[in-house]
Amino acid sequence: MSDPMTLKIPRGFRAGAVKAGIKPSGGLDLALIVADGPAAAAGTFTTNRVCAAPVQWCRAHLPADDMRAIVVNAGNANAATGQQGAANVARTAAAAGALLGCRPDQVLVASTGVIGRQLPMDKLEQGLAQVTAGLSADAPGFQTAAEAILTTDTRPKIVTLEHQGQDCRFSLLGMAKGAAMIGPRMATMLAFLLTDAPVWPNDLQPILSDAVETSFNCVSVEGHTSTNDTVLILSSTAATAPVLAGDDLSAFAGLVRLACQSLARMIADDGEGATHFITIDVEGCASREEARTIARAVADSPLVKTAIHGADPNWGRIVSAAGYAGVPFDEQELSLWINGVAVYQNGAPTSIDLGALSADLRGKREVTLRLALARGDEQIRFWTCDLTAEYVRLNADYTT
Amino acid sequence: MSDPMTLKIPRGFRAGAVKAGIKPSGGLDLALIVADGPAAAAGTFTTNRVCAAPVQWCRAHLPADDMRAIVVNAGNANAATGQQGAANVARTAAAAGALLGCRPDQVLVASTGVIGRQLPMDKLEQGLAQVTAGLSADAPGFQTAAEAILTTDTRPKIVTLEHQGQDCRFSLLGMAKGAAMIGPRMATMLAFLLTDAPVWPNDLQPILSDAVETSFNCVSVEGHTSTNDTVLILSSTAATAPVLAGDDLSAFAGLVRLACQSLARMIADDGEGATHFITIDVEGCASREEARTIARAVADSPLVKTAIHGADPNWGRIVSAAGYAGVPFDEQELSLWINGVAVYQNGAPTSIDLGALSADLRGKREVTLRLALARGDEQIRFWTCDLTAEYVRLNADYTT
Repeated sequence: MSDPMTLKIPRGFRAGAVKAGIKPSGGLDLALIVADGPAAAAGTFTTNRVCAAPVQWCRAHLPADDMRAIVVNAGNANAATGQQGAANVARTAAAAGALLGCRPDQVLVASTGVIGRQLPMDKLEQGLAQVTAGLSADAPGFQTAAEAILTTDTRPKIVTLEHQGQDCRFSLLGMAKGAAMIGPRMATMLAFLLTDAPVWPNDLQPILSDAVETSFNCVSVEGHTSTNDTVLILSSTAATAPVLAGDDLSAFAGLVRLACQSLARMIADDGEGATHFITIDVEGCASREEARTIARAVADSPLVKTAIHGADPNWGRIVSAAGYAGVPFDEQELSLWINGVAVYQNGAPTSIDLGALSADLRGKREVTLRLALARGDEQIRFWTCDLTAEYVRLNADYTT
Repeated sequence: MSDPMTLKIPRGFRAGAVKAGIKPSGGLDLALIVADGPAAAAGTFTTNRVCAAPVQWCRAHLPADDMRAIVVNAGNANAATGQQGAANVARTAAAAGALLGCRPDQVLVASTGVIGRQLPMDKLEQGLAQVTAGLSADAPGFQTAAEAILTTDTRPKIVTLEHQGQDCRFSLLGMAKGAAMIGPRMATMLAFLLTDAPVWPNDLQPILSDAVETSFNCVSVEGHTSTNDTVLILSSTAATAPVLAGDDLSAFAGLVRLACQSLARMIADDGEGATHFITIDVEGCASREEARTIARAVADSPLVKTAIHGADPNWGRIVSAAGYAGVPFDEQELSLWINGVAVYQNGAPTSIDLGALSADLRGKREVTLRLALARGDEQIRFWTCDLTAEYVRLNADYTT
């Protein structure tokens, strides 16, 4: 996470947040991000068949070259809410449009929280008027927005990056939320990226989609794909500055990828109840999808996650999770390293000091698992966290 | 579970178990089941690519018409053990064959316990001699065998069924183990079925495979497919009695299915740390596989399992798990009932008393979820359990 003191805010955006009364806790729960002029915008979304009303709204309106705002509420997912849920998104966009002087379809909407309850629209509309009056182009506005989009997260997730090219200079700000119901598949969770780099939607969309493939699609807390996964990116200058191309566009794509990966790591590291942050490298695969499939099976296994929580070097759980992932490898080609120690080589156990490995796991928050096959040269890096009794406690009574 | 006092033991089998010193606890850990004469035998096995040495041994020798014994040890899975693991299975079968007066390839072997450690062969061979000396054709021999195959199970799982046809009478005994690493896929966990019905291998195999499809393949504790899943069925009379056909064979197939379903339910009900036993009915699907895919996604979601643990009627987690299963349904056709109460109908929430539903969940160990789609007439029944802090505690230090 970037030092809040040094947040570099991209030109052309303002943000803020208020306590609208949607979260039972009474905390910040309504964020508004506004582009001063028409912004180029792209997005990626959940592949869940039960898909939140705001996701359907955004998907219908993106990519676009004249977006003006993102309204985000926490405390209510507006998912599985039927036609009334869809009407409430349209009403939210209309209310924001009236306050900002733009059309409703220039307003993007995202929600996170409990599924299956209707939004308290009176509170939301009152909150919108209040937050519009207090928007700021400086760091504090974006910091409160990053706080307002959280649910069970223990800390905000925000990153800023800058690029100085030969003829151009631009910055990128990203914020995300997510601590559970994290298992994005060809999709992602809630994250917002803002840039003052002049990039058109037809470049923004593939750059974002590519970055998501190696970031949010490589993170899991418990593998439960959300109904509300949304990543949006807005460029404030595409309409007014010469658009990026060539090396500058490549540099921009690199920044987007780096920002997405930073936020994805923060999400796994802040997984509900987590005591270990786990990086899984899978290499020697025939395709990136194969590597991801194996990494996800390992990351989502409750037996792997509880073993790491207990600093238990029970590596059989890791190789057996790889084995049921669905990739048709031969056991004789499989090798595994835990924190750099080879525990399984070409289908047979090595002679290692399990006590020393256990002590190593107990002493570190960060754990690395490396799985190697001999099927090809493709690889992936995936992030997850352990499974603890605290996760169970948090989720045994989230709504009640 | 059948009353131990009334266990009906199929003719032609003897069983027993001893404490061989393989389990660190010092409990019963080596079971031997012997057929008095050549037995018809079939089996189904894990689809995990990392597959235990005894699974490879059994798979190579089945189906067969002259099996004589099953050796089962708990406390060590003999999985991910390389060539030495394979040699140890052959040595186990040879030792049992020498004691019983049969060829090694007439001896089936199954193991369960920690992955990645070599079997203590001296202890195992001493135990084999001891258990062979104490075999019994009566209930206590089978009851101790059913105890010896357990690991973290809290109770033995055994079922006996009888059939009286017009011209034939036969019985079926099944025993199983399993409390975690339970997520069979086109395969199953450790279960042994013994019958005195005269059924040849070419009938036994399809009958067993069919029964497994609607029993062990419909149960999950945490979805982690084991390296050691094995179901074996032995008929003691196929070589000597007129083989079953027609209605009697159908009746036998029904008994096998019922026995497998009973054992599968027992496994979910005894899931590690479980406080709720959950039955999931998925109906209105285009195929049984579709229904199973949705049921498994719901059953394996930690968010669904923790909600039920907390008696939290957070039904959005259930419909969203169905949504990411991979079945391309429309949200508008989805409906959900919890313990018979409709909470979600055709893509929209109903008006129900969530407090009353929570009280209902808190008061009952058994929970039923019913999900209905409108894609066809296929359905499935699936069993699982909740996820508790006790599960985490048990699995955070299983090997250490």
